[in-house]
Amino acid sequence: MASRSTSNAAPTQADRSNLIPFSSRLKEGKALAQDVWSIYAAANLPADCINLGQGYMNFAPPAWVTKAAEEALATVAPNHYSHPRGRIRLREAIKSFYGPQLNRDLDVESEILVTSGANEGQYSVFTAFLEQGDEVIMFEPFFDQYLPSVTFNGGKPVYVPLHPPVGDKLNSSSSEWTVDFQELRRAITPRTKMIIVNTPHNPVGKVFTKQELEFIASLAEEFNLLVMADEVYDCLVFDGKEHVRIANLPGMWDRTVTVLSAGKAFAATGWRVGWLIGPASIIQPTLAASTRIVFCSNSPLQEAAAAGLEQAPGRKFFETQLAEYDERRKVLTDAFDELGLKYTMPEGSYFVLLDISNVNFPEDYPFPKSVLGRGRDFRACWFIACELGVSSIPVSEFYCEDHATIGEAYARFAFCKDVDTLKSAVERLRRLKDYM
Amino acid sequence: MASRSTSNAAPTQADRSNLIPFSSRLKEGKALAQDVWSIYAAANLPADCINLGQGYMNFAPPAWVTKAAEEALATVAPNHYSHPRGRIRLREAIKSFYGPQLNRDLDVESEILVTSGANEGQYSVFTAFLEQGDEVIMFEPFFDQYLPSVTFNGGKPVYVPLHPPVGDKLNSSSSEWTVDFQELRRAITPRTKMIIVNTPHNPVGKVFTKQELEFIASLAEEFNLLVMADEVYDCLVFDGKEHVRIANLPGMWDRTVTVLSAGKAFAATGWRVGWLIGPASIIQPTLAASTRIVFCSNSPLQEAAAAGLEQAPGRKFFETQLAEYDERRKVLTDAFDELGLKYTMPEGSYFVLLDISNVNFPEDYPFPKSVLGRGRDFRACWFIACELGVSSIPVSEFYCEDHATIGEAYARFAFCKDVDTLKSAVERLRRLKDYM
Repeated sequence: MASRSTSNAAPTQADRSNLIPFSSRLKEGKALAQDVWSIYAAANLPADCINLGQGYMNFAPPAWVTKAAEEALATVAPNHYSHPRGRIRLREAIKSFYGPQLNRDLDVESEILVTSGANEGQYSVFTAFLEQGDEVIMFEPFFDQYLPSVTFNGGKPVYVPLHPPVGDKLNSSSSEWTVDFQELRRAITPRTKMIIVNTPHNPVGKVFTKQELEFIASLAEEFNLLVMADEVYDCLVFDGKEHVRIANLPGMWDRTVTVLSAGKAFAATGWRVGWLIGPASIIQPTLAASTRIVFCSNSPLQEAAAAGLEQAPGRKFFETQLAEYDERRKVLTDAFDELGLKYTMPEGSYFVLLDISNVNFPEDYPFPKSVLGRGRDFRACWFIACELGVSSIPVSEFYCEDHATIGEAYARFAFCKDVDTLKSAVERLRRLKDYM
Repeated sequence: MASRSTSNAAPTQADRSNLIPFSSRLKEGKALAQDVWSIYAAANLPADCINLGQGYMNFAPPAWVTKAAEEALATVAPNHYSHPRGRIRLREAIKSFYGPQLNRDLDVESEILVTSGANEGQYSVFTAFLEQGDEVIMFEPFFDQYLPSVTFNGGKPVYVPLHPPVGDKLNSSSSEWTVDFQELRRAITPRTKMIIVNTPHNPVGKVFTKQELEFIASLAEEFNLLVMADEVYDCLVFDGKEHVRIANLPGMWDRTVTVLSAGKAFAATGWRVGWLIGPASIIQPTLAASTRIVFCSNSPLQEAAAAGLEQAPGRKFFETQLAEYDERRKVLTDAFDELGLKYTMPEGSYFVLLDISNVNFPEDYPFPKSVLGRGRDFRACWFIACELGVSSIPVSEFYCEDHATIGEAYARFAFCKDVDTLKSAVERLRRLKDYM
C-alpha cells in the first residue's frame, strides 16, 4: 500500500470535550499525525497535477482476471463468507503457483492464509506474535504502515538504516543502498522478536542479495527471531536480477512468513486480497488473530485472484507485465539521465528515488503549514508539485525522527502509471533544471 | 457474522517445537479454542444435512446490486485503494439513507467510516478506545466474536445475562428475554469503558424497547460509557415493531457508535463491507485504528453497497426483503407450533431459539470428542444434525462459562435460507417428537 490519501488528523480538543478518551495506543507510532499521503493528496494540489506520489495504478486489472470476479458475483456461495483461511480455490492456486518457487508441497490447510490485503496480513502477524515491549527491527526507509501496526500491538520498532550510495555518481543502483551488518547485529537485544525484510524494497527499489539475506538469516537463527518477508513487489524485479526468498534459505522456512499481494500482482490495489505463506507454527496463530480482526477476506475478489494465479503462467502474464513496467521505469530514468539528475535506479518495485537536495526553491514560497517544520524534502516535493505539476512523496517520512535527515535528500516517484502519463510527467520535470 | 466454518484449533506442541512463541493474547478469549462453527461445519456432518446452523444465506444478493459491482470492475479507480474512510459514493449513500433515521445531517468526512465488514469496524473501535484492563459490558448470550476482539485489545469482558422467559408457555416472544437493570448497574465498575447493545439481537432475536434503551442510556451517561450499538440486523424487524436506535435518545449521539452491515442488508455476507456512524470524537480515532489495521475496505463492493442504499428506497427493497424473511420465519415457527415445541419467536434478526432441553438422546450415541465435555446442547445439536439431518448451533457457546447452563436449553436455527430449504428442514424436524 504505497498510496495514501487519508486524513488522520488528530481529533481536536473540541471533539474530545466531555467525552470518552481514546486509547493511549493511538498516541504512539504517528497514528494520529497528519500523514504524508493526506498532505500530498490530489485534493490539496493543483487540479492538473500528475500524481506520481501515490503508489496505485492508473490502469485497470486485466479483463480476464476481472471476469472471474463477475462470474463469482453471478453465483451464490462466492457472495458469502469464505473460510477464514481463504477460499479453497485461491489456496489451491497459491499452492500451485508458489509451491515450486518455495520447493514445497504447501499444505492448504495450515501453511497458507488469505488476508484482507497484505496490510491486514502483516497486522495479524504482529497481533499473533508480539508481547508488550517486544522489539521489531525494520530497515529504514520503511513502509510507514509497519510503525503503528507494531505499536498498536504493544511492540517497539527498532530502526536500522539502509545507507545510501556515497559519491557524486548520478545514476546509482538500489543495490548500492547497503546494510551495515554490525549495526544490524548491535540492534538486536534480548527483547527482539521479529525482523522485517522488505524485498523488493519500498521506496528504495532494492532487491536484497542472497548474501545479504544469508546474513540476516544467520542472525535470525542465532537469536531465534521471526522473519516477516514483505515481498509484495516480488513480480517486479528487473534486469534478470534474482529475487531470493529468505524462506528458501537453509533453516529459514520454520521462522519465516512471506507476505504477498494480489493488488500488486494484478493491478488491483483496491481489492484487498493478500496472502501469507509460512509454517503452521506461524500461520495457525496468525489465523486465530485474523479470524477475530476481519473474520475473512471478501469472497468474489478472492475468486478473481485465484483465476489470476491459475492463468498467469499460461498467459505469460507476469513476464508481459514486467516488460511493461520496465518500459515505464525507462521513461522516467531516461529523462533523469538526459537531464543529468541524480537518482537511484530501482532493481525492483515501482519507485524511483530522485535526489532533490539540489533543487532550490524560494524559502518564502507560500507553503502550507502541513509541510513547514518537516524535512526540507516536504517543501521541495510541495514546490515541485505546485510549480511543475508532478507530485511525489518526500522520503524523510519513511525514517524515524533520529534518521530523517538521511531521507531528506530524496523524493519518491511512482511509475505504476501508463506510459503516456509518465511521458507527460517527464516533460514537466524538465523544468527542474531551472531550479538547480 | 453468524456463520463460522473455521478450525482455529490450538497449534500442537509439535508445531511449536524450537520456535517462536505466539502472543499470550491468543491464550485469552477462547481465541485458540475449537469454536462452535468448526465443530458443526458441514464437512463434519452428514453430507445431506440441511444447514440451519450457519448464518449466511443460500441465495445471492439482488442482481441490481451486484450489477454495480460489475460496473465498478469494468473501470479503473474503483479497482484501486479507496480512501480509508470509504468511497465517497458510499459515504454519500449512507448519509442519505441513515441521516433521516438519525435526524442528522451526517458529515461524510467525520461521522461515517466504511469498514471491512461490521466485524472489523467493531474491532477497530476496541483498538481505538480500550486501555489495558478496561471493562466492556456485553449481554449474554453474545455474538461470540466480541470476546476475543475485546481481549486482543487489552479489554476485559463483563457479562450481564438476558434472562429467558420463565414458565411452560410454548411460544414466547424474544421480548420476554429481559435485562435485570439492577444487575446491569452492579456490573459497572470504575474500569467500565464501554457497553455493547446488540439490537436486533443475535441469537435471541430480541429488539430492545425504547424503555430498555433509555435505562441503558441513563447508565451510560451517569458513568460516561461509550455505547457500541451493534444493529447489523436493523433491516429485519418484524410485526411492525419499532426499532429504536440508542444513538437517537437524548444525549446519546455523542457517546454512541452504530455498527451496520452491507452483508446483512443485501444478502452478501462475503463482501466484507460494513459501516460505522457516530460523532467525530468516536469516528476519528476509529479511523486511525482502521487505517492501520486494513488501510481500507475493498473498492468494487463498496460501489455495489452504495448502489444498494441508493436504490433500495425506490425499489422498496427492504420492505420486500422483510416480507420474505417473515415468510421464512413463519415456515419454521408454524412447524414448531404444530409440533408443540417450545421456542422463542424472534422480533428481529434471522434466528429462532428452540428449547431442546426435552430432546432425549442416547447417552451412548457415538458423539465426537469435540462435543463431549461441553454443554448438553452440544450433544443435542449433534444428535439432531446426525439423526434428523438439520444442523443448528448450541447456544451455551454464546455464554461465558459461569452462565453456560442458561444457554444449554437452546439450539439456534437460522432462517436466512430459501423457503424450499426451510420446508425440507421442518419436514425432517417433525421427527423431533419421537425423541421427546
